[in-house]
Amino acid sequence: MKINVVKRVLNANDLVAQDNRKKFKQAQVLAVNFISSPGSGKTTLLEKTIQKLLPDEKSIALVGDLQTTRDAERLAPGALQATQINTGMSCHLYANQVADALKTLPLAKADYLFIENVGNMVCPGEFDLGENLKVVLLSIPEGDDKVAKYPTIFRAADLVLITKIDLMGALSFDLKRIQDDLAKLNANVPLIQLSSLKGDGMVPWIQWLKAQRRKGIGAQAKFVTEE
Amino acid sequence: MKINVVKRVLNANDLVAQDNRKKFKQAQVLAVNFISSPGSGKTTLLEKTIQKLLPDEKSIALVGDLQTTRDAERLAPGALQATQINTGMSCHLYANQVADALKTLPLAKADYLFIENVGNMVCPGEFDLGENLKVVLLSIPEGDDKVAKYPTIFRAADLVLITKIDLMGALSFDLKRIQDDLAKLNANVPLIQLSSLKGDGMVPWIQWLKAQRRKGIGAQAKFVTEE
Repeated sequence: MKINVVKRVLNANDLVAQDNRKKFKQAQVLAVNFISSPGSGKTTLLEKTIQKLLPDEKSIALVGDLQTTRDAERLAPGALQATQINTGMSCHLYANQVADALKTLPLAKADYLFIENVGNMVCPGEFDLGENLKVVLLSIPEGDDKVAKYPTIFRAADLVLITKIDLMGALSFDLKRIQDDLAKLNANVPLIQLSSLKGDGMVPWIQWLKAQRRKGIGAQAKFVTEE
Repeated sequence: MKINVVKRVLNANDLVAQDNRKKFKQAQVLAVNFISSPGSGKTTLLEKTIQKLLPDEKSIALVGDLQTTRDAERLAPGALQATQINTGMSCHLYANQVADALKTLPLAKADYLFIENVGNMVCPGEFDLGENLKVVLLSIPEGDDKVAKYPTIFRAADLVLITKIDLMGALSFDLKRIQDDLAKLNANVPLIQLSSLKGDGMVPWIQWLKAQRRKGIGAQAKFVTEE
């Protein structure tokens, strides 16, 4: 009897991503890929997060943008290193861009690698960078219909952050709608509401992040199963 | 003496776009491609615009989204027809998706074709749909650094709309920064500030739109030069 074993054929990007993931594991670094529209607050959140993790835990920031180095400049204070990747015409990061950056990053000294993807709700979800976790941000001004309209990325999310909740009163935003739509796509995904500006929600967010890193480094569960 | 004439080789998308543009011209329809991040207010603006143009001028709405038909449903009241194109995994519309839709649209009865692209600041700018004009929206909550960070789309814009200006007081947003960055990329592009919700800026916006249509149909200037 012949048994056909169907294996997922890894494409070039996936192969590089796999190699990145090995490097993160060796360095015991938790790599987190931050994905959202432009202006959802990725950089502000990372600024605050990097500061909150200090002095115990150290972070590297890797930022993708079509142009400018503004975000890396904003993240440099507090980070072990902040590197900007200019993607030119590409609306997402590729694994090989991360691999190239890794050559110059002090990974062995870091606890976290925060990868801020290009602002885009679609393509960043389709390109594995080797990250351990995908965090998807949705800000209140973007509206409560976005989970249903951009299902790919919300299905892939390990955590959904509802950002800019200080604007909740000023704008009509139905959180129940978000939760109902998420329940259909990604039933057990945790959701945290926060305001990087006012500080609300920062405690559970940092706790979640630290717990993920402990899990990864302790049992190596996440790190191992993803290889 | 041999003269080499270098022509831009049109790709498959451009050829279909060219054909779409011919159809718009024949029907004397002004086709406008609306591009922005998710949640910048494209659909709300179109809802109000379609209503404001009535009863003299009639519109068709063509809406791109990964999934759902919510936007087309919102635009149906007032429009001659509202058609949703579900793009699945694609983060932008292609010209052939517009061409397919045109087969069933009452183009001859319309004055405007409003194409709402998938929410994305990058790729929609790289794919010609045959439209006469590109309108790029940027909402106040997205932040005043976005022109410099997404130069491709702002360079291609025929008009920049700063939306949700009712939030200008609540959020820090430096309009001067936007204007300075635009001056470097696309010096003569007009900029209109508006709030679809409160109505501010709707008058100059509708005037601009009507003037563009008159220009196109009168001298056929825009329509002709783009062929």
